[in-house]
Parts: sequence; C-alpha cells; structure tokens
Amino acid sequence: MSLPSRVKVVEVGPRDGLQNEPGVVPTNVKVAFVDQLSAAGLPHIEVSSFVSPRWVPQLADADAVYHAVKKGEGQIYSALVPNNFGMERAIAAGVHHVTIFTAASETFNQHNINASISESLQRFEPVCSAAEEHGIGVRAYVSTSFGCPYAGRVRPADVADVARRLFELGVGEISLGDTHGAAYPHRVPAVIEAVTAHVPLDRLAVHFHDTHGRALANVYSALTCGVAIVDASAGGLGGCPYSPGATGNLATEDLLAMLHGMDIETGVDLAAVVDASVFMEEFLGRNLPSRHLRAALAARR
Amino acid sequence: MSLPSRVKVVEVGPRDGLQNEPGVVPTNVKVAFVDQLSAAGLPHIEVSSFVSPRWVPQLADADAVYHAVKKGEGQIYSALVPNNFGMERAIAAGVHHVTIFTAASETFNQHNINASISESLQRFEPVCSAAEEHGIGVRAYVSTSFGCPYAGRVRPADVADVARRLFELGVGEISLGDTHGAAYPHRVPAVIEAVTAHVPLDRLAVHFHDTHGRALANVYSALTCGVAIVDASAGGLGGCPYSPGATGNLATEDLLAMLHGMDIETGVDLAAVVDASVFMEEFLGRNLPSRHLRAALAARR
Repeated sequence: MSLPSRVKVVEVGPRDGLQNEPGVVPTNVKVAFVDQLSAAGLPHIEVSSFVSPRWVPQLADADAVYHAVKKGEGQIYSALVPNNFGMERAIAAGVHHVTIFTAASETFNQHNINASISESLQRFEPVCSAAEEHGIGVRAYVSTSFGCPYAGRVRPADVADVARRLFELGVGEISLGDTHGAAYPHRVPAVIEAVTAHVPLDRLAVHFHDTHGRALANVYSALTCGVAIVDASAGGLGGCPYSPGATGNLATEDLLAMLHGMDIETGVDLAAVVDASVFMEEFLGRNLPSRHLRAALAARR
Repeated sequence: MSLPSRVKVVEVGPRDGLQNEPGVVPTNVKVAFVDQLSAAGLPHIEVSSFVSPRWVPQLADADAVYHAVKKGEGQIYSALVPNNFGMERAIAAGVHHVTIFTAASETFNQHNINASISESLQRFEPVCSAAEEHGIGVRAYVSTSFGCPYAGRVRPADVADVARRLFELGVGEISLGDTHGAAYPHRVPAVIEAVTAHVPLDRLAVHFHDTHGRALANVYSALTCGVAIVDASAGGLGGCPYSPGATGNLATEDLLAMLHGMDIETGVDLAAVVDASVFMEEFLGRNLPSRHLRAALAARR
C-alpha cells in the first residue's frame, strides 16, 4: 500500500453538475461559481461543454463562460468536446484544455452516443490532432470503467484496451468513470492494474459517483493503488441521468475532507469550496448532497 | 487482506435513530418499524433504551415496545441500559440482550455521562453480574474509538484498554464507535489491531457515522482487517447530536448494498429494509439520508 502524498482534485461541477440541472443557470452565475472554485485553489476546473446546445441547452453559453472566468496561474480550465465540430468551437473560444469521452462498454456507447467504441475513437482522432497542433491539452473519460448500467460487469481488460488506444491518440490524462456508482472498493485495484500496464499511473484519474454512498470507499481503494488524480463536483452537484433523484458525483468537500485528514496535500482551501457550494445552493434554492457541506454548515452555526 | 464471507449487520435505527428525533414516535409506529426490520432478516436489532425518560423522552415506552415486537427465531432484540437502575427496568421488561456504553476518551465521558472511564466501568459491574445471573447477553459501545470531538485524536492503546476491561467484565460483543464521523480509513487498522490483542476478532463490531461521507470507506478498511460485525441504521436515521442538521449513522441500505455487491452474505433482504425506511420517511414526513434508498426508489419509479 503506497498512499500518494499529494492528490490533484479535478473539479467537474460547473460542467458535469450544471449540465444535469433541469433549468439553465445564467452565465454570470456560472462565471461567479467557477471564479470561487478557482480562488479556492482547485488545480483543474472543467468549466463547460461544447456539446451541441440542442442536446445540452444548459451549457449553450460555453464560449461566454470560458472567456469570462478568471484564469489563475498554473491552473487548468477545460471544456468538454464531443467531436471535431465541438473542437472547432472550443478552439475559436480560445480553450486551452479539452476533455473527450468514450466508454469501456459497447452497449453503453451505443445507448449514449450511438456509436461503437472504435467509431468514437475515430471521431476523436482529428480532435487530438487539432489539439496537438494548437498546443491544447487533452483529458479523456472512460465511462462504465467499473460496470455498465446495461451490460453489468465490465472486464478490466476492456477498460485497459480503451485507455491504451486513447493514450496512443495522445491523450494526456485518462479518467476512469464509475458512471452509475456501481464500483466496489475490492474490485477497483484490478481495473487500475490492468490500465497501468499501458498508461503511466501519473496519467490516471478516477471519477466515482456516490449513488450508493461508496464513492469515498472506492477513492480510498484507488489511493492505495497510488492513483493521485481524483474527480469531484462541488457540493455533489449533478444527478445521475439514469436515476432521477439519485445522487451523482462525489462531492468535492467530502473528498477534500478525507484527503486532508489523511495528510494528503491538495493545495485546495476546503472552507472556500464550502462557500462556493453555499453560493450555488442559494441560487438553486435547495440543499446539495455533500455530507461534509451539511456538517460544516452545522458546525458554523 | 482477508475479507469476511459473511457479515452480521446490527440494526440500531429504532434506538440510536429514533432517540435523536425531535418528536416522539408513537409506540405502534415503533413496533411496526421494528417488525419490518425483523422480517427483513436483520440478525440483531437494538429496539429501544432504558435510559431515564427525563433524558430521552423519545424512548420512554421502551417496555411496551420491547414487549410488543415480534421476535424471530435466532434473532437478537436488545435494549440500551445506562446503569443498574436501567438494567432492573430491562429485566422487568423481559429483555434478553442489553447494550452498555462508555468511551475511549476521558474528556468525552466527562461531557457525555459526567463520569470517568473507570467510574463508568464500575457502574457496569453490577449490570454485567445481573446479566450473567439472568442469562442476558451484553454488548458494549466504546464511543470516540476513532477520535473525540473534544480531545481530537484518541490513541489506539486507550481504545484497547477500555475494550479489554469491558471484555473482562463479561461483555460478549464490543462495538467501536466513530461518534462524530471523524474516522479515516487508513487509521482504522491500527485501532482494530490494538483491540484484537485483547478481544477476539469475532467479538468486535464497528459503528461508523457518515457525517463526512466516509462511513463505507471506513467499513471497507475494517473488513480488510477481518471485522465481520457492522452497525447501521435504516435509512441513516439519527443525526449527530453535536452537529444539528448533519448526517449521523451509516445507513443500513448503503452498507447492505456494498456488502452484497462484494459477495459478502448478510442474510438480510435489502429491498425489505428499503420498504421499512419508506415507512419511516412517510411517518416523519421527510427524506432520510441513505444514498442507496434514494437510488433504489428512483429505480422503482
């Protein structure tokens, strides 16, 4: 067991969280939210998405948001791009870092993006070429890395194969996604081991959902394998599209509280993230699901 | 790493959960709740408490509830007793199994029960003698086993010392309590190891709170040490008395969902526990904090 001494937390709330909100959050509120997260010291913030506004109207203002957010020295501000058309929009918007996505399960990819895994990787070839040409960093999500809502179990070898092909396309960081919170901590190491046969450990991130309350158990298991990049969403913003009402993303606060208590450095100010979540709670008019957020606010009273 | 193949889940919701409700739940509702949990197959249910009704008016009907609940073959129905006076009430009520409590932190014990650890153990001597005389089983909680809200860190050696003294008093099962959800998974093994130098592993339980979302991470860590008895509360009933509004007990549903997915047997019907929690949610008029409960209800719709 070799716990990392420092973990990079990738904040996905402004994109993965807000794209799942039923209503559209105004541009100035999004910008203020990102600016607060940025001031809290989060090293990488996924700001928005250049998916077609027809599919995700919540993030139709990606250009404006990306342009307006204050960019801190040494911090990464990324945007999701689904294909080369999205990439062209991202380049026009001056984006420095993009995220792309596919899945380890053929069934999931067919349902989610109506393409096979190979077809989705082919779509990303020109995106990766353009990124290289423009000096744009690329991060990739591999959905269903720990199980598929349609097909059930996913073989670690299949995850490793997709990760390897993404790495060969020039992707700099690969995030293994637990799409519907189906991961179990005792099975996480087998997936990490299979992937690190092809991708260096320091390029590997994990993205667990807290749908069944296991996100931190799975993070802990990944940390014991040496994984040092973890995705999370402020307040736990973002439900699971397959289960309305259920909890989605791991909350950034819950992750930071665990890491800091384990003497793992993140460079992030946890209290400032709590403040950013309170800002969004006040705007949305409801409590977000983070456990630490509730405890911290109770302790402040 | 030696994960157990079977785990005994100890359901504490009817006592530890309902004693923290602001209002008093009527006796017939408590009985119906326990009967549902019992029918779900939970092997041990902490039904109520013989603490003075002046201190815990919510459970003043302990005698009536204990008498009325249907007792399944081979299942344990216990009640909390704070001292010999409570024990006399429990014996009069025909209780077969009692739970007692102290803490590993002197400061906490002073704040919580206005007694030193040694004084509290002396109080339990006649309780344990009476239990032996009447053939009543005894379980003990050691609060603040993973940290103290007043004193901070608690030494594993101090936890082991209290556990040893309880074991010497004739206590059959010792539950290490994470009173304010302050445990971290990487530190759990040191506590388990210190205690099992004096108490057999199969007499040891863990009781984690989900205040900061780490309960299942800590359970997973304890499972890897071979611990095979875990406390939980249906729906996650029961807040933390030190942080109003914050989450308290680990939810039984979240625990069962993880254990079953890890192919660890419990003999408990998870869907029936969800139904019992829905019954309490409808009575209380609010959602309980269990993550799995929300996801399961979303999936049913």
